[in-house]
This record gives sequence, structure tokens and C-alpha cells, in this order.
Amino acid sequence: MKITIISETKIQNKYTKEAIKEYTKRLGAFAKVNHLITSNPEKDIPKNAYVIQIDENGESISSEELAQKIDNLAVHGHSHIVFLLETSSSISSDFSLAISQMDMDSDILSIVLYEQIYRAFTIIHNRTYHK
Amino acid sequence: MKITIISETKIQNKYTKEAIKEYTKRLGAFAKVNHLITSNPEKDIPKNAYVIQIDENGESISSEELAQKIDNLAVHGHSHIVFLLETSSSISSDFSLAISQMDMDSDILSIVLYEQIYRAFTIIHNRTYHK
Repeated sequence: MKITIISETKIQNKYTKEAIKEYTKRLGAFAKVNHLITSNPEKDIPKNAYVIQIDENGESISSEELAQKIDNLAVHGHSHIVFLLETSSSISSDFSLAISQMDMDSDILSIVLYEQIYRAFTIIHNRTYHK
Repeated sequence: MKITIISETKIQNKYTKEAIKEYTKRLGAFAKVNHLITSNPEKDIPKNAYVIQIDENGESISSEELAQKIDNLAVHGHSHIVFLLETSSSISSDFSLAISQMDMDSDILSIVLYEQIYRAFTIIHNRTYHK
């Protein structure tokens, strides 16, 4: 499985970079993860990818439901999932996911998303969640 | 305003400590913030404090609504707010707040909570949110 996280906003803080580095390392056991910062997300979405937009007005689901969703995508032949973070333009997506109804700083939202993706894969593979 | 964040779980990661340090510094302009790790949260809740429990089954509100809530508490003479994070015991609280319906690592949830408290105060005081 390939995971691409696409954002228009650069990571601001060192602690965010460290958290993302740590979760990317852990995710390596399950998926190939790329983080793409771009001024034109729509253009840079890989073809055939399944696109999940993070949007506070989207659907609130549990961690288990996100895991099930990713697992279902894999079963149905999707080998690439894109998570769109904080994109200002209205890009058509396959699913709109609300992590929280609260506004979040883009750095913090990135950390939360990485943790949820890692958590989803530990659920899918029935693996221990390492703290 | 005094803010106390009470948790039973120690902060695990250096990046979390750095994020919390940064937000505590920023919050200094608005409130006195303490972080208390305790094995007995119920016993350690300061008397007369207004207690907000973070609970994924609680009420989902927006950042603006949290700001309004904190502002209302101040107006009504509450000078101390306690946020209960990840407490296993069922402690009676004044309000139950769902930041997300997803499970979150206690470190990540701490960062998210600090950011929401900081964001709430910038909204209350109509101040620029510094990234």
C-alpha cells in the first residue's frame, strides 16, 4: 500500500518534523509513505489514487472504522491512498473525513493524521500499538 | 485564569514535551497553566475548579464554542479550569468534551488539547494565532 499525504502548508515546527519522522518509520512496516507539499494539490494527486480529504465538515468516524475503510480499499485493489490536508481549493475527493470539529493548526493536524494512519494499520494487522 | 491539565499517563516523547513547552509559553499571556501527572486524579482535582473531561463519547464542539465556554466560565467567576485527560477512573466532571471520535495516543491528545486551549484564548482575546 502506498500512502501520500498532500498539503499546501509547510511543516513549521521541529517537534512536528520529529513526530512525523517517528510515525513514518513505524508506518514503514505497513506502507510506503510520502509527504508532498505543493501549491497545486489537484495537479499533483497521483492518478488512480483513492482520495481522502481531511475536512472538519466531513464524516466523523472511529479509528476502527478508518482501519476498516483502508482495509476494504486494499481488498478492492486500491494500492494508493491520498490524504489531503488543509487544502484551500475544493478538490473532488472520494471521502471526506472529519478528525475533529475543532480547527487545528496544520502542524498538529499532520501529527494527528500520521498517528491515525499508523493506528489504522496496527488495527488491520492486529499488531501492538507501540507508544 | 488558572488551567490545570491532569493526566494519569506520563508524556512519552521528546517532541511532545517540546510542543507542550511551546504552547505553555504562549498560554502564559492568558493563563497560568499547570500539568499534573497523578495516579489519583480524583483526589488531586483542586476544589472549586470547573472540570472538563476529555472523552471521545463527550460533546463535539467547535473551537469557537470552547472559547465561548471558557469565556463564560470566567464571566461567572470560575478562576480555575481543570482538563482531565485519559483518566481511566470515572470521575464526575462538569462537562465532557470530545475532541475527536477517534482514539488518540495520550501524547498526541495532550498536544491537541494544549493547542485548543491556546486557540480558545486567542479567540477570547481577539488575538492573532501565532503559528
